[in-house]
Amino acid sequence: MNRIAPPLPFPPALRTLQDRLARSALAQEGRVRQPGTFASWFAGARERSDLRVDRVDLGDLRDWDRDPRTGALRHSSGGFFAIDGLDVRSPSGPVPHWQQPIIHQPEVGVLGLLAKEFDGVLHFLMQAKVEPGNRNHLQLSPTVQATRSNYLRLHKGRAVPYLEYFQERTRHHVVADVLQSEQGAWFFRKRNRNIVIEVTEDIAVQEDFRWLTLGEIYRLLAVEDIVNMDTRTTLSCLPLAGGGLDRLMDTGDGFRDALARSCAGGEGGVHSIDELQSWITEHRAQGELTTRPVPLNELRDWHVSPERISHTSGRFFSVIGVNVSAGTREVGGWSQPMLEPHGTGVIAVLVKEIDGVLHVLLRASVEPGYLDGVELSPTVQFTPESVPPGTDRPRFVDAVLSAPPERVRFACLLSEEGGRFHHALNRYLVVEADGDAGLTEDRDFRWLTLHQLSTLLRHSHYLNVQARSLVACLHSLLAPGPGGTPGR
Amino acid sequence: MNRIAPPLPFPPALRTLQDRLARSALAQEGRVRQPGTFASWFAGARERSDLRVDRVDLGDLRDWDRDPRTGALRHSSGGFFAIDGLDVRSPSGPVPHWQQPIIHQPEVGVLGLLAKEFDGVLHFLMQAKVEPGNRNHLQLSPTVQATRSNYLRLHKGRAVPYLEYFQERTRHHVVADVLQSEQGAWFFRKRNRNIVIEVTEDIAVQEDFRWLTLGEIYRLLAVEDIVNMDTRTTLSCLPLAGGGLDRLMDTGDGFRDALARSCAGGEGGVHSIDELQSWITEHRAQGELTTRPVPLNELRDWHVSPERISHTSGRFFSVIGVNVSAGTREVGGWSQPMLEPHGTGVIAVLVKEIDGVLHVLLRASVEPGYLDGVELSPTVQFTPESVPPGTDRPRFVDAVLSAPPERVRFACLLSEEGGRFHHALNRYLVVEADGDAGLTEDRDFRWLTLHQLSTLLRHSHYLNVQARSLVACLHSLLAPGPGGTPGR
Repeated sequence: MNRIAPPLPFPPALRTLQDRLARSALAQEGRVRQPGTFASWFAGARERSDLRVDRVDLGDLRDWDRDPRTGALRHSSGGFFAIDGLDVRSPSGPVPHWQQPIIHQPEVGVLGLLAKEFDGVLHFLMQAKVEPGNRNHLQLSPTVQATRSNYLRLHKGRAVPYLEYFQERTRHHVVADVLQSEQGAWFFRKRNRNIVIEVTEDIAVQEDFRWLTLGEIYRLLAVEDIVNMDTRTTLSCLPLAGGGLDRLMDTGDGFRDALARSCAGGEGGVHSIDELQSWITEHRAQGELTTRPVPLNELRDWHVSPERISHTSGRFFSVIGVNVSAGTREVGGWSQPMLEPHGTGVIAVLVKEIDGVLHVLLRASVEPGYLDGVELSPTVQFTPESVPPGTDRPRFVDAVLSAPPERVRFACLLSEEGGRFHHALNRYLVVEADGDAGLTEDRDFRWLTLHQLSTLLRHSHYLNVQARSLVACLHSLLAPGPGGTPGR
Repeated sequence: MNRIAPPLPFPPALRTLQDRLARSALAQEGRVRQPGTFASWFAGARERSDLRVDRVDLGDLRDWDRDPRTGALRHSSGGFFAIDGLDVRSPSGPVPHWQQPIIHQPEVGVLGLLAKEFDGVLHFLMQAKVEPGNRNHLQLSPTVQATRSNYLRLHKGRAVPYLEYFQERTRHHVVADVLQSEQGAWFFRKRNRNIVIEVTEDIAVQEDFRWLTLGEIYRLLAVEDIVNMDTRTTLSCLPLAGGGLDRLMDTGDGFRDALARSCAGGEGGVHSIDELQSWITEHRAQGELTTRPVPLNELRDWHVSPERISHTSGRFFSVIGVNVSAGTREVGGWSQPMLEPHGTGVIAVLVKEIDGVLHVLLRASVEPGYLDGVELSPTVQFTPESVPPGTDRPRFVDAVLSAPPERVRFACLLSEEGGRFHHALNRYLVVEADGDAGLTEDRDFRWLTLHQLSTLLRHSHYLNVQARSLVACLHSLLAPGPGGTPGR
C-alpha cells in the first residue's frame, strides 16, 4: 500500500525541494495523527456547513446596486466584484465580433497553501470549504482562499484563518508565489496570487482543516467534484520538476516512467523552451483580439429579465442572483450575482510519449479577459452546447471523445470556482494520442514536456486556469495505485 | 588592440551561444571587409539623410485628426498611435492623484537585430537611422525598427528592409524573442517585440547598414547620443549569461571580473530568483495604482494652446507637433505629434561587489502605462525639473550624483526613442555604491546579479526600458579598453 522510502537520515534543507515533493506525491497515507479518517472529517464538515442557496431576482440582491446608466451590477461597498458588458472583436476567429457580460474583479486574491513536513513527508493544510456555486457545496480548498475584500473584511465578517502566514513570509520558506489568470471568457483580467509556504513551526489545526500529503490529494483529485479549482491551480505551481525526481522513475509502468522523465526534464523536449517562448511571442505580437466596455443593459443578443441575463440563443451562460446562508463562512449570509454556464464542458489534453518522454499538446489561445492577450490552453476546451450552429467543432474534439478507455489516463468531472460560477462543471480528460505526433502541430498547437510547463508556471500569463488544472491532474498520475492505472 | 582568441577549430553549433556572445563582446574590431571606417560610413549616412524637422501647430498636423468630443489626436488611417488623456490614482505614492496626456500604441512593433558569424565572431547588422526626435537626427538602430503600421505600409511608403528575416523565422536561429514594455510614464501599455535572429546565409548589405561586433557596439554605447534606445533594449535581451563566459573572467581587473561572475551566475546572488519573484509578486498583488481614460481636452492642470499641451506648472512634458521631411525614410515626409520632456533626466544604478559578485540595486516601481502593474526600474530614475515642490527627491539621488569620479563606471548622455519623443535626453550612470549593501534594501529595493536580470529578461513585464538600457551599459563594461576603465 505504502511504497514510500524510509525516513531520510538528513534534515529537510539538505534534500532538494523536488525530492521532497516527489516523496509527498508517493505518500498515500499521512504521517500526522489526526482525528478520524478523511471521509469522516469531510462528512463532519459537511454536517456543520449548513449552506443554503436560493435563487433571487437580480433586482433583489441585498447590498448590490445596478448602475442606473449602464445596468452594471456592483457591490455597495465598492469591493468584491462587478458585472458589466464587454464588446469583443477577433477578426480572424470563428466568431469575429460579439458582446457579453463579464466579471470585473481588479483586486488580487490569495490562494495560499501551507506546507509542513511531518515524519520526513511534506503535508499540505487543506480546508473543507463551502461555496454557493458548488453543486455539492463542500469541496477541498487551499488553506486560504480569499479576495482582498474578504480579508480586509469589507463584509464585516470573521477573520480569514492562517492568512497571516502568507502576509508575513520572511520567517518561512516560499515554495511558489506567482499571479495567475482565471477564466478569460468570464473574468476581465482577473488574477489570483498562487502561493505555497513551508513552515516548520507548530500550527494549531482548526476544525475544518486537515493535513494531507500530495499523494492523498492526488488520489482525491480523481474523485468526482471534491478537489476545487483553487486547489488545482495552486498545486500546478508546485515545482515538481527538474532533478530530485529520481524516486518517481523506473516503476516498470511505461506511462508513469515517461511522465516522470517529462517532469524531470533535461534533454528530450521536441521544442526548446526558447522556441516555445518565441512561438508565444509571435502569437502575442499578432494581438488581433480587442475589447471595449459597453453597458450591460445594452448588450447585443443578450436578454435582461428580472431573474437573469441570458443570450437570446440560450447558449453560453446566464447571470443569475442567489441568496446564501452559511454557518461556517466568515459571514452568516449574503447575496450575490453568479455566472451559470449552460452545459457541461470538455477540457482535455492529448498526451504522447515522444522518444521516451511524455509530451502534452497545448494550444496558443486568445480569450477576451487575458491580461497579456495569449495563454496556453488545453488541446480541447469547449462546451458542446455553446458551439454556434454552422461553426465547426474545435480541432481534436473527436480524437478526445472517441478514444478507447485504455487510452483515457484521467477522467473526472470537476467544478470551476464556486464563489463566482454556479454549477460550472467540466469533464477533465488526459487522453493518449494515437498516430503521428508531428501531424498534430500547426500554427496554434505545440507539444510540451511537463518540465517546460513547470518552467512557464513560475511566471504569470503562460498557462490558463484550465491548463493548470490539467497539470495538477497529470502530476497526480505520478502517484502509484488507482491514479496510475489506465482507464480509471 | 585586439585581444580575442584565434578562430576555434569546431563549428558554431558546437560552441555555446554564451561563449560566442562573449567572444563578440571582446572583439573590438570587425572581421568583415566593409567599405571605409565606421566613422566615414556614419558620416556618409548623415549626409544622405537630409532630415528636416519643423514645429507646427497641433491643429495643422497633416493626416492627424482631433476627436471633436475628447480632443484625442489620432492618425487618419486609424494606425500608428494616438494621444489621449489618463487619470491616475496611486493612493500611497508621493502624488496620490494626477491626470496627464498619454500615448496609446496598441500594435506591437518589431525591434529586430540580425546576427551572423564572420571568421568565428558574431556580428550584428546595425542601421544608421534618422528619427525626428533625435537631437542629432541620426543614430545607430537595430536592423529593423518598425511599427506594424510601418511594415503594413499604411503610409504607402517603401518596404522595411530585412523585415522578412523576422517574419519567416523557421529557417534561422532565434537568439531572443520577447515582448518588452516602453516608458510607462508616457505610453499606455505599449510593447515591442525584441527579437534577435542568427542567420548563416549571405545577406546583401544596403547602404545605411553595417555589420558590427558586440565589442564595437559596446564601445559606441559610451559615446554621447549614438546608440539609440531600440538598440539598447534589444542588446539587453541577449543571453549574455550562464556558462560559456569563462573567457571574460580573470582579466586582473577586479571590477570586470566581478561583473563577469555576475553574468555567469551560479551561486553568489544575495537573493534566490524565487525570492526575487516572490518580492515582485508581493508588489503586484498590492496593485494600488489605478487608471481610467479621460478626455485630452479636459485634463486637470494641463493647458491646451495651438502649439502645445503643457502642464500648468511647466514641469513634466509637452505634446507638440512637427512636420518632417527625410530622404532616406520609407516615406518622403510626414507630420506627427511628439512628447517633449522638460529637462534632462538621471537614470542610474548603484552596483556593488558582494562576495566577489557584482550586484545591481533595482527598485520595484509602478508607472501608469505598465501592463502588469509593477516592473523593476533603475535605482534612480528622475528628472530634477519634474520634482514637484514640497516633495522629496527620490532615494539614492545624492549617492549617485555626489559619487567621486573613480566610482562612476559608466556615464553617458543617451536619447529615448526619437520616433515619439522630442529631445528626450537622459544621463545614464553606473555608480559603485559606498558603504554597507545591507542597509540599502527596503520594501522597494533589492540587489540582483546580472545573471538574474538576464533570466528575468527572457520574459515580459520584469525590467522597464530604462533598466534594460542600463543592462546593455553594464554588459558593455565586460569589454576591455575604454569601456572597462573607471571614470570614462
